[in-house]
Amino acid sequence: MSLSPSPGNAISVEIRYENTVGKLSEISKVIAEVGGDISLIDVITTDRKFITRRFRINAASVDHAKQIEDALRAVAGAEVLDVYDCTFKVHEGGKITVESTCKVDNADALSMAYTPGVARVCKAIQAEPALADKYTIKGHTVAVVTDGTAVLGLGSIGAGAGMPVMEGKAVLFKEFGGVDAFPICLDVDDPKKIIECTKALEPNFGGINLEDIKAPACFEVERELTKMMDIPVFHDDQHGTATVVGAAFLNAIRLTGKKPENIRLVVSGAGAAGLTCTRILQSLGIKDIIVCNSKGTMYDGKPGLTVPQQWLAERTNAEKLDCSLKESLKGADMFLGLSVANILTREDILTMNKDPFIFSLANPTPEVPPEEVADYASIIATGRSDYANQINNVLCFPGLFKGLLTAGAKKVTREMQLAACHAIANVIPQDELRADYIIPSVFDERVSPAVSEAVYKIATDPNAPQTPLYFEF
Amino acid sequence: MSLSPSPGNAISVEIRYENTVGKLSEISKVIAEVGGDISLIDVITTDRKFITRRFRINAASVDHAKQIEDALRAVAGAEVLDVYDCTFKVHEGGKITVESTCKVDNADALSMAYTPGVARVCKAIQAEPALADKYTIKGHTVAVVTDGTAVLGLGSIGAGAGMPVMEGKAVLFKEFGGVDAFPICLDVDDPKKIIECTKALEPNFGGINLEDIKAPACFEVERELTKMMDIPVFHDDQHGTATVVGAAFLNAIRLTGKKPENIRLVVSGAGAAGLTCTRILQSLGIKDIIVCNSKGTMYDGKPGLTVPQQWLAERTNAEKLDCSLKESLKGADMFLGLSVANILTREDILTMNKDPFIFSLANPTPEVPPEEVADYASIIATGRSDYANQINNVLCFPGLFKGLLTAGAKKVTREMQLAACHAIANVIPQDELRADYIIPSVFDERVSPAVSEAVYKIATDPNAPQTPLYFEF
Repeated sequence: MSLSPSPGNAISVEIRYENTVGKLSEISKVIAEVGGDISLIDVITTDRKFITRRFRINAASVDHAKQIEDALRAVAGAEVLDVYDCTFKVHEGGKITVESTCKVDNADALSMAYTPGVARVCKAIQAEPALADKYTIKGHTVAVVTDGTAVLGLGSIGAGAGMPVMEGKAVLFKEFGGVDAFPICLDVDDPKKIIECTKALEPNFGGINLEDIKAPACFEVERELTKMMDIPVFHDDQHGTATVVGAAFLNAIRLTGKKPENIRLVVSGAGAAGLTCTRILQSLGIKDIIVCNSKGTMYDGKPGLTVPQQWLAERTNAEKLDCSLKESLKGADMFLGLSVANILTREDILTMNKDPFIFSLANPTPEVPPEEVADYASIIATGRSDYANQINNVLCFPGLFKGLLTAGAKKVTREMQLAACHAIANVIPQDELRADYIIPSVFDERVSPAVSEAVYKIATDPNAPQTPLYFEF
Repeated sequence: MSLSPSPGNAISVEIRYENTVGKLSEISKVIAEVGGDISLIDVITTDRKFITRRFRINAASVDHAKQIEDALRAVAGAEVLDVYDCTFKVHEGGKITVESTCKVDNADALSMAYTPGVARVCKAIQAEPALADKYTIKGHTVAVVTDGTAVLGLGSIGAGAGMPVMEGKAVLFKEFGGVDAFPICLDVDDPKKIIECTKALEPNFGGINLEDIKAPACFEVERELTKMMDIPVFHDDQHGTATVVGAAFLNAIRLTGKKPENIRLVVSGAGAAGLTCTRILQSLGIKDIIVCNSKGTMYDGKPGLTVPQQWLAERTNAEKLDCSLKESLKGADMFLGLSVANILTREDILTMNKDPFIFSLANPTPEVPPEEVADYASIIATGRSDYANQINNVLCFPGLFKGLLTAGAKKVTREMQLAACHAIANVIPQDELRADYIIPSVFDERVSPAVSEAVYKIATDPNAPQTPLYFEF
């Protein structure tokens, strides 16, 4: 699969040229010939003779964007006035601001929002700490916490370099869930310090969204913080992914009529997401699961297993199949990829039973090119926005935390996760389900309220079981 | 000085009554008779017979507010529909929100603000960390950090109970300086942990405003963080106060023509603010200073001095005067109170030289009642908004940090502090100075830009000395 132009690599080019018939089409042709994909053409200024236009052009890479720019600079009679990278432009100044909800433009207002009035509010919270939910931002604000050790697919790039992702997450919290969120990028070198610093921030936040912390540190951080803190702690890379994978699976079986107990699932990726996806798919009824990493299948007794892998090995692959990922696919009904690009071919997929579910979530390039297996698979899902059935955590976390905060929940539980999972799936009515529509769009405005409501219901049900999300190892 | 009604204790009362001539005046009279101070009368609804009005009434205390409410409930023919505490109302939901600066309502926008586009911004910052100032919120965002050990005059009420103050500070940062600020209330029990947690947050913020941390921990926290971090660290309770006190002093001598070197100053309060105010007033030319605490004058050799007190003792009271605060006032030209309410009387002030400067900053009740010494003092300043010459830190910190952030400064220095001090003073032209107008109003829109510009100038001057603000003990 060659790189295709995408908005993430878009450039904006401002061009001034003599406004004659055919010139716009000439410029458009130049862009097309170098493989650029125009997403927007606008007019900046125009006079009797000249016109200045802005072109927003998707490119396949930064180098490709440069080629497009060069091609445009070579157009006779056209002058390139300005070129910028659209993604960097969006990031200028960061992506969030802190705004005040009260005006302090006179002495009375200042006396209420600040001293001396504020002292009474402080004393009220000192006397009854739960009032913080009502009289501070704690009641509606989440920390997006990372140490920058596993940012996107970029690896351990550091807390500072992780900021744009955490700010982006804060944007998504607000835009999709109406939840305030603030990035907390911790420049620390030890999971114990993530725990200590995050715990210390409990007065500020009503929830903790852990993000892009590498395994196995993420397990310890989540577990210890969940035990120490009286606010919900959620590691999105694990449990958000699992929630949306679960929702997609629920609709895949709703659509195809397959029975979970008849499905043999092969999971590629024994990391944090592999564990929690395996667990939720077991909760949803799949009994026959084989988990592989780059060294092949996990099984109880395999030498060199890490603690999390041992957890998986004890709960999957009862027959102790010892083979490679490719070999393990034979006769399987579902593939869940949480690993790396292009490790499987069409031939590998053809060894699976007919009409398999292929959830190939490696980002940005799936484990197997979707185009190549579309005829054989019954359902394909990926992590990409330019294919059908995008598995995107944004379907879960904004609504999840909205529900948790509204309920004043102190923990997030597996019961809430399953409720969120069903809520996402059920946004699509049975009669609208199609092979290329088993999961709602991230822009579907029904999703976040549905998730929020489902989570709120469990969180406020005194009889609901309280099974922790974290792994007990 | 008895308590007077203030907006910090205001209540809002909604009353429905038959709309007859004289009824409004009757209700207003009832409020006046119980000592309530009406700040607002509004109409909620009205029909042919009845009117519903909202009264906002300043009260002297919560009990007094209740008396006002009871008096209104007793008015014949009037029905109290709703009563709320205005200060608590302002605090509902907290006082700040986190807003996104980019819309993500379509796939292209999402690809730029979040994955996959954001990865390129992360990589750029990884390669060149200074880009964080441009592409994240770090360049314009300050942390307001506390451990809740010395909140206002309330003492060690805890980090959670301190949140309303830190949020209020964030509001002031935004409203007065255009600076984003976020509260960081650390639930820790050791200055070492404040240091560790704050240091870990360096990727998120372009500056640290330390707030309401008790002495002597505040000195260590400020000093260590300043040394460890590449962003400015400023303890507002120390240096903000000193900056504004210095500005008021500059204008006091501008107005009266007194010479700093002829002034004998008595400072009441040997805490954090006492140290830094003493230091800045020495920088501004005062040579003869005596600092007292509740046990009398500090002098070198006095038994039982703490390390900060020893610092003061070595630099003041060269004659080693050993007496009480009251006794030390005899023959002094200026009093600076940074201590507690009502410890001095008119008689004490009358022992000072004629026309003294009285800066009595204990809050909310000054060390000496201003009314009682108005005839003897040449200039009186307090911390209160209902007297002339309010010494309020908000004159300093918003503009100070705006200048620091704009300059990309890594430290805040004494040179910058002095520049801010002069900038505040010089907002008032010489010919507008009066005894009751030596310091600009907090609502004077010239202040923050003047401070910002002055600080920016020093911060970007490669030849400016770089004297640290922290104390070297």
